[in-house]
Amino acid sequence: MVGTAIAGKLVALGHEVTMGSREQGSEKAVAWVEAAGGSAAEGTFADAAAFGELVFNCTAGLHSVEALESAGGENLAGKVLVDVANPLDFSAGMPPTLGICNTDSLGERIQVTFPEARVVKALNTINCSLMVDPERVPGDHVVFVCGEDADAKRQVGELVQSFGWPAGRIIDLGGIRSARGTEMYLAFWLSLWGTFGTGDVNIAVLHAES
Amino acid sequence: MVGTAIAGKLVALGHEVTMGSREQGSEKAVAWVEAAGGSAAEGTFADAAAFGELVFNCTAGLHSVEALESAGGENLAGKVLVDVANPLDFSAGMPPTLGICNTDSLGERIQVTFPEARVVKALNTINCSLMVDPERVPGDHVVFVCGEDADAKRQVGELVQSFGWPAGRIIDLGGIRSARGTEMYLAFWLSLWGTFGTGDVNIAVLHAES
Repeated sequence: MVGTAIAGKLVALGHEVTMGSREQGSEKAVAWVEAAGGSAAEGTFADAAAFGELVFNCTAGLHSVEALESAGGENLAGKVLVDVANPLDFSAGMPPTLGICNTDSLGERIQVTFPEARVVKALNTINCSLMVDPERVPGDHVVFVCGEDADAKRQVGELVQSFGWPAGRIIDLGGIRSARGTEMYLAFWLSLWGTFGTGDVNIAVLHAES
Repeated sequence: MVGTAIAGKLVALGHEVTMGSREQGSEKAVAWVEAAGGSAAEGTFADAAAFGELVFNCTAGLHSVEALESAGGENLAGKVLVDVANPLDFSAGMPPTLGICNTDSLGERIQVTFPEARVVKALNTINCSLMVDPERVPGDHVVFVCGEDADAKRQVGELVQSFGWPAGRIIDLGGIRSARGTEMYLAFWLSLWGTFGTGDVNIAVLHAES
């Protein structure tokens, strides 16, 4: 769902997109290509990573490192790798717990595993509909980016702006270690979802002058 | 610091307060009593728990269960026990990690250990200055309560309102399991603190109609 939402938005914005799956010709990917139109394609994880100037990781968080290994470190080297996944573990039912947390995060693990990729953790604190359509929720709610590479964060910030997020509502939380906070936030977000009865829920950040 | 902030506010609001410490006559507690005035007292954890109609846990989260055991389950039975602590582990330096998280929370552990106490997790997503003075941060930022006992949450909500929080800015996240979310939120909050350079930082929650 996350991959389809982001890939669809990218195509709508005029980008050429290859959606990667475990195997070429997956039913969902083929259906997406047919629905999305001319600049959409599909292939293996490696095909997608080799094709993209910028790569989104929208795989299930607990399998992301494996999927990215299948994509190939050589296809990710030097590229901006936007990690929107969360390491949710549904094995004990709902609500999920986190398969990685507290002393590590998925974002950090991806950066450590692929040191030549320019990992930016982004957009993982909201559901995928809201990622690409911020006006679903009224008000000055925000999204977050973190990562070690300032230029990569700038590029991701521009892309997120093209999704409809004003620059002032994209908060840079610093290095990739901050992914711990935005991933652990999911436990809180699940409570918000339950409380307000909608996944179209997000936060604004307010503060005194420092 | 949290205990002093809350106890001071309670005294200022006209409540009688006994601050509990590991031993009676602790230097900090005696100094607080002298500064706070007539309706303030101090003693052991057990003295404070026996005295209070309502008990705040403001101890360091990793030692809270031990402190509450010292206070005595019989002194907590039937009482509203407001848990504002977070199980922060500073043993590996800054930023802290959580000593309990993901599949458990301090709030849940306290409720399980003291089944006759009416535990309400509250106020633990902000710093103690803001807890008792919400106007330090502009805007409609919020605090959270969770717990199994609706009447206990109502009582805590009224007390939090007396601290200056409008009723509409006190969000009930449901049962005590939701404490996982508000405690794991601390990792995110620490990033906000670092990013904005002030502990006077909080969030508003915005959502579409469900």
